[in-house]
Amino acid sequence: MTKPIIAVYAITKEWQLEEIKETAKVYDVKVKDELNSDDIKNIEIVYGWGSELSENTADLNQLKWIQKDTAGLDAIPESLRNDKDVLLSNMSGVHAVPITENIFGYILGVARGIIPAMTSQLESKWDKSIASNMFSLKDKKILVYGTGAIGQEIARTAKFFEMATYGVNSNGRSIQTFDHTYTMESSQEILSDMDFVINALPLTDESELFFDKEIFANMKDTAYFLNIGRGESVKDDHLIEVLEAGTLAGAYLDVTSPEPLPESSKLWQTQNLVITPHISGNVEHFRDMIYPIFKENLDSYLSNGTLAKNEYNKKKGY
Amino acid sequence: MTKPIIAVYAITKEWQLEEIKETAKVYDVKVKDELNSDDIKNIEIVYGWGSELSENTADLNQLKWIQKDTAGLDAIPESLRNDKDVLLSNMSGVHAVPITENIFGYILGVARGIIPAMTSQLESKWDKSIASNMFSLKDKKILVYGTGAIGQEIARTAKFFEMATYGVNSNGRSIQTFDHTYTMESSQEILSDMDFVINALPLTDESELFFDKEIFANMKDTAYFLNIGRGESVKDDHLIEVLEAGTLAGAYLDVTSPEPLPESSKLWQTQNLVITPHISGNVEHFRDMIYPIFKENLDSYLSNGTLAKNEYNKKKGY
Repeated sequence: MTKPIIAVYAITKEWQLEEIKETAKVYDVKVKDELNSDDIKNIEIVYGWGSELSENTADLNQLKWIQKDTAGLDAIPESLRNDKDVLLSNMSGVHAVPITENIFGYILGVARGIIPAMTSQLESKWDKSIASNMFSLKDKKILVYGTGAIGQEIARTAKFFEMATYGVNSNGRSIQTFDHTYTMESSQEILSDMDFVINALPLTDESELFFDKEIFANMKDTAYFLNIGRGESVKDDHLIEVLEAGTLAGAYLDVTSPEPLPESSKLWQTQNLVITPHISGNVEHFRDMIYPIFKENLDSYLSNGTLAKNEYNKKKGY
Repeated sequence: MTKPIIAVYAITKEWQLEEIKETAKVYDVKVKDELNSDDIKNIEIVYGWGSELSENTADLNQLKWIQKDTAGLDAIPESLRNDKDVLLSNMSGVHAVPITENIFGYILGVARGIIPAMTSQLESKWDKSIASNMFSLKDKKILVYGTGAIGQEIARTAKFFEMATYGVNSNGRSIQTFDHTYTMESSQEILSDMDFVINALPLTDESELFFDKEIFANMKDTAYFLNIGRGESVKDDHLIEVLEAGTLAGAYLDVTSPEPLPESSKLWQTQNLVITPHISGNVEHFRDMIYPIFKENLDSYLSNGTLAKNEYNKKKGY
């Protein structure tokens, strides 16, 4: 009789694979290179994800659980994401600290004159005038769209630097690390008061192209916009326009649409814009950080068919 | 009869000047533009400092107290700094938070790939390989030369990011925010283990040209050096050599020698080096932050001839 398959697409260490096999003895545990096209119909559990799975969703009729190896789930076809019979979990939380470090690397970089100085350094120029736009973070206002694990870690760090923290979520509910919370709609009223506006939203119908000229026009011309959510949430042309016009002080994009950003994109040479190649979630010992989450869920799944943590809420879309 | 003079070189607001006059009625309070050469011999108190005072120290025979408007005192001639009859105080502490923000702007900038990405952005290049040198700050080791107000704030912030903190001071005494402390000499033994080495020392005989090829050779080639103390503490040629050789991962200089750094300096175009024009201590509301320290000392000086805070220790040299 054919055993059900656990398909491992996430990067794993040898001992981790051995432990999975030991834990799930009634399953065939196969890493992606060992999977052939006949295997797809026998896959019950996927750890990570592969594009060949997206291309053959009709064959995945034994699929019961996907443990994605990232926070975002948009690599998984919508039909599967909405399938009531498939459990879904992600790595939300693992990236909260590193992404927050990127956020504050940029915020401190612009606030403390380091990023502007790197431009004058190209011209061997000791430019003291940079100091006139410098500030300390104390009492500055930061607005984070998305109050999940990443948003909360951003707010916790902002509080360390004595900033005022504002958060946005679906219903405006209170979240501990945020001084104030708003809905997407009510957040528009406070935009003009913010020093930093950060997109940490997953990609949903509501967040798609949300950051457009209306949002940017509401922001102060001394304010900064940061995107570590998804590139599809930003109207690039509108962002380029306000940056080139100087009506927005600067922006940081760790995510773009498409990715990789083509060499021909106007974003690369837009003034006061810093782009990193979707690396902010990167952690040095990634395999060590994500495996315990999969293992805990695997134990729980095998014993009672439920997941212990990080289960995706299909109704809310994150 | 000629009144003793309070010479004000520090930038002050109108109401602050009025309050000084009100507080010290028996004195003539003169800002630098109101001072003429005859006044110098009647100066008893200086708030701030001016180069014309350095050039006429022999005439300053009524001088009893200098309240410097910065943390560093090296603008004041050594003869005055060592004069037992002249009280000396500085603004140590005011700059601790902003300088620390610069330190972490750079540290997070290199650790999280932002500073390297700014170089590939110049070539419109989506360079994912940057991620291979990225790391989170947790458990990284930071060594701070100088455990005063600035060093302690750096260590407090490092602790927030869960780093291990090492400090260096004259006798290796314990300081609360540091996990371990060393003397200048014993610090050499742990250099090879450090991820970040920071100079926050004032300029003294001991710290002058302290950071030379021997220090840099002891550091890991994945380590970073930061200087927010004084430019004179670093052997520039040696720093350039290790950066160009790649035996040091990067460096950040907010201070240089001389300042401004001339356009012809090789430092400007040295790879993996970021220079800011001595701005890290800059605060948005500087006059509001330093004046209360002067005022508290003025009240104390007028009532009993002593200073309430920030008095310079002539024996230790800081």
